Amino acid sequence: MDTTLRDGAQTTSVSFTLNDKIRIALALDDLGVHYIEGGWPGSNPKDEEFFKEISKYSLKAKVAAFGSTKKKGVRAEEDKNLNAIIDSGVKVAVLFGKSWTLHVTHVLKVSKEENLELVYDSIRYLRDHGLEVIFDAEHFYQGYKEDEEYALEVIKTAEEAGASVIALADTNGGTLPHEIYEITSRVVKELKAKVGLHMHNDSGCAVANTLMGVLAGARHVQGTINGLGERTGNADLIQVIPNLQLKMGFKVIPDLTKLKGVSRLVYELSGLHPNPYQPFVGDNAFSHKAGVHADAVMKVPRAYEHIDPTLVGNQRRIVISELAGSSNLLNYLEKIGIKVDKKDERLRKALQKIKEMENKGYSFDLAPASAVLQILKELGIYTKFIDLQYWKVINESGNLSLAVVKVNSQLQASEGVGPVHALDMAVRNALQKVYPELSRVKLIDYRVVLPGEIKNTESLVRVTIEFTDGKDNWRTEGVSTSVIEASVIALIDGLDYYLQVSKKLKTEILN
Amino acid sequence: MDTTLRDGAQTTSVSFTLNDKIRIALALDDLGVHYIEGGWPGSNPKDEEFFKEISKYSLKAKVAAFGSTKKKGVRAEEDKNLNAIIDSGVKVAVLFGKSWTLHVTHVLKVSKEENLELVYDSIRYLRDHGLEVIFDAEHFYQGYKEDEEYALEVIKTAEEAGASVIALADTNGGTLPHEIYEITSRVVKELKAKVGLHMHNDSGCAVANTLMGVLAGARHVQGTINGLGERTGNADLIQVIPNLQLKMGFKVIPDLTKLKGVSRLVYELSGLHPNPYQPFVGDNAFSHKAGVHADAVMKVPRAYEHIDPTLVGNQRRIVISELAGSSNLLNYLEKIGIKVDKKDERLRKALQKIKEMENKGYSFDLAPASAVLQILKELGIYTKFIDLQYWKVINESGNLSLAVVKVNSQLQASEGVGPVHALDMAVRNALQKVYPELSRVKLIDYRVVLPGEIKNTESLVRVTIEFTDGKDNWRTEGVSTSVIEASVIALIDGLDYYLQVSKKLKTEILN
Repeated sequence: MDTTLRDGAQTTSVSFTLNDKIRIALALDDLGVHYIEGGWPGSNPKDEEFFKEISKYSLKAKVAAFGSTKKKGVRAEEDKNLNAIIDSGVKVAVLFGKSWTLHVTHVLKVSKEENLELVYDSIRYLRDHGLEVIFDAEHFYQGYKEDEEYALEVIKTAEEAGASVIALADTNGGTLPHEIYEITSRVVKELKAKVGLHMHNDSGCAVANTLMGVLAGARHVQGTINGLGERTGNADLIQVIPNLQLKMGFKVIPDLTKLKGVSRLVYELSGLHPNPYQPFVGDNAFSHKAGVHADAVMKVPRAYEHIDPTLVGNQRRIVISELAGSSNLLNYLEKIGIKVDKKDERLRKALQKIKEMENKGYSFDLAPASAVLQILKELGIYTKFIDLQYWKVINESGNLSLAVVKVNSQLQASEGVGPVHALDMAVRNALQKVYPELSRVKLIDYRVVLPGEIKNTESLVRVTIEFTDGKDNWRTEGVSTSVIEASVIALIDGLDYYLQVSKKLKTEILN
Repeated sequence: MDTTLRDGAQTTSVSFTLNDKIRIALALDDLGVHYIEGGWPGSNPKDEEFFKEISKYSLKAKVAAFGSTKKKGVRAEEDKNLNAIIDSGVKVAVLFGKSWTLHVTHVLKVSKEENLELVYDSIRYLRDHGLEVIFDAEHFYQGYKEDEEYALEVIKTAEEAGASVIALADTNGGTLPHEIYEITSRVVKELKAKVGLHMHNDSGCAVANTLMGVLAGARHVQGTINGLGERTGNADLIQVIPNLQLKMGFKVIPDLTKLKGVSRLVYELSGLHPNPYQPFVGDNAFSHKAGVHADAVMKVPRAYEHIDPTLVGNQRRIVISELAGSSNLLNYLEKIGIKVDKKDERLRKALQKIKEMENKGYSFDLAPASAVLQILKELGIYTKFIDLQYWKVINESGNLSLAVVKVNSQLQASEGVGPVHALDMAVRNALQKVYPELSRVKLIDYRVVLPGEIKNTESLVRVTIEFTDGKDNWRTEGVSTSVIEASVIALIDGLDYYLQVSKKLKTEILN
């Protein structure tokens, strides 16, 4: 069960629009997730809207609504939260209830006996309305450690009331893998209902805890795409699923190669940058930086790769940097169809140039296309397609930005909603007649960071831009004290790279 | 043993200067790490320099140099790499050797017998020169699974040759926690030497694998600060250490509260932004977003916190967002000395305003100072100290940026090395006479992302700026299609917030 749309929406600094939620739900359905927890209809109107909207699609996945057991002193049929779940029209409810004595007595402030009634009555009420109920036993592991007997009593009550799954939640994320294994094994023995898991990452073990719980006999797993969730997040399904499928022999989803795409979509919609170090799908998950690794992996891939990267929609990267050797550069050049002898002196000079620029704030492993342009120049096979002779951009409160550029002796001007837009338009105006293919090139990401020492507003900024022509993506960067100048450099590099590759390199072979 | 300076330096997009390495080593020593692996003297001149430089300091930690077993066909005393370790002047060597048959026959291309000799002779040679030797058995777990007998033979050879620690490496990071436990338990039974662990995070289990290995009897742990390292990185010591110390009862370092500071230093020097979701030390590790969590945690902290955040130098954060309730806002206001009744109608309206702005691309949990300004406006206790009436900025190829602003009816101009610098200078020129205290305010971070739907260069950009007055830090943000306009908004908010807080709010109590 994916809970990106519920627990994931509780991630600090993440906020999904209704439209985002629909897009994510459709992607999860396409991925083959069995249950999609869509939100908490009793807590906010956006989530109510979601259930209305998603019911218009016919999904293979079961859509579930989240909510808490009924309020104390209220009959189930009068409980606003339970009725919101029923009104949402879902067939599956995920109901959370207290299983840690501390929470019962100090947060809910009811007796242990009353809490059992809340659990029983709430589940019964939903079952009587024809809903499947997954019971999330909040803080189960903590509760078990402090009051074993009561924690078990709560989940047995939920089972009796008709819950189909009893999901054990490590709500504060404090439990360690060996404890998860031990406690889950016990629960699996005690219950007839399917046992589930809901792990948080506060100890850095959410993925491992999920795997250990499955090993102990749990057969329902909750998590989120990219590990979104409260605080440090939930178990990352992007990591849990391939571990279960490729290493533990479970058939979870039909096609693992979709994982990277779903991960990217959720990053994009959550406004977070993809984590390049994310296991399985990160851009660096199969990157090799040290010369010795790069060398070995090109001989025997499984020497430094735990799985074939293409199985999860990822790919190998050989990285260019000061630790790199010629092998790393060669790999880049091969991708765009250029073969050079490993001992070619020009290659060594190119590596030198790259290292010098990295010292000045560039970071080419983030923007290989800019590195390739430098290498082509050193190899002597670079053609100057774009000659930017002059640029100026004026920004003013309340007005559109205005850019003037002189490119290939063409003077052009353009307005834009911001300086980068105005400059981009002006440059394209100047180039469109000579290079009509540039109309296929679109900017898809733009980011700015301070790469070096912070010297107030005078610091160096590094602009990274990602481009696509609908088929391939490439990234460039510019470094300057001016965010505008750095943007201009990265922008021109992006168009230039496309022209170098598409017009010329495909056919060129050196030596 | 920390290997941030060796395996961590192999992180894609990370590059340490010599000075960075010295700063990190001193911070690790202060933290109380027992061994510091400083680099690979045989592989690059920067690492050789490091050992020369660090020997001038008297550290409590033992400094170790990394290297591989000798080359085939070369006598130990003639091996360049082994002699580089000796020449580096360290007392401890970390020597890696092959323990996976595939690597022996297909990467090294020697016989299994010859590899045993390489291991034995290399360790003996270093021992004869008075060095302590930690043997890193590369790919041990993989090797054990495919050829158990040979993997054990390799480490027994290392033990016989005099290695003090046999560190089992999960070099490709593919092994799962239960396998680590099982295999490590077997090795602990077979050896007399201390057993160590070196885990990579490719399966998302590096921290858990380390803990499971310790549970199986290993008593030496390798890892890096923030989990830096090849591909997806190594076990993150920032997570491993507090788990071992607070949950498993080991005394690892004297003072855990230094963890957050060391983590920040390494992020800064590696040019990576701190991961706000990092367990234990991340800014969000103890943040509470959902209204129900915020409410409960203010009643009973351990209700949603696995440890007391102050133990690791962190703190609780109650986050402002559309999922927040009034409790979240109150917490912010209390910090700057304002008390408001939780039921105050103006508070509800402020929350409404916040949520509307979040819908437009703002993300106030990244920039609470901008949120506070909105709340003050809604509460009716905002004073307009800064009135920005007009701004214009001109950027041009090869020239300094020029900004003109009209603030509080003062027209001022300034040049700058970039548009943000020029604008910042001009605004300060206009304000310095009335608010001389602004000279204490410095910008310390600036970043730009595309928060919403990507529409090429016309997309919305969100600028976040962090300020400091040397005592407190605060973050503001601006959203616009223009990176310049968004910067102006965030810049003015940052100065404005400082004036609101320092001039007025400290004494103000509502109701």
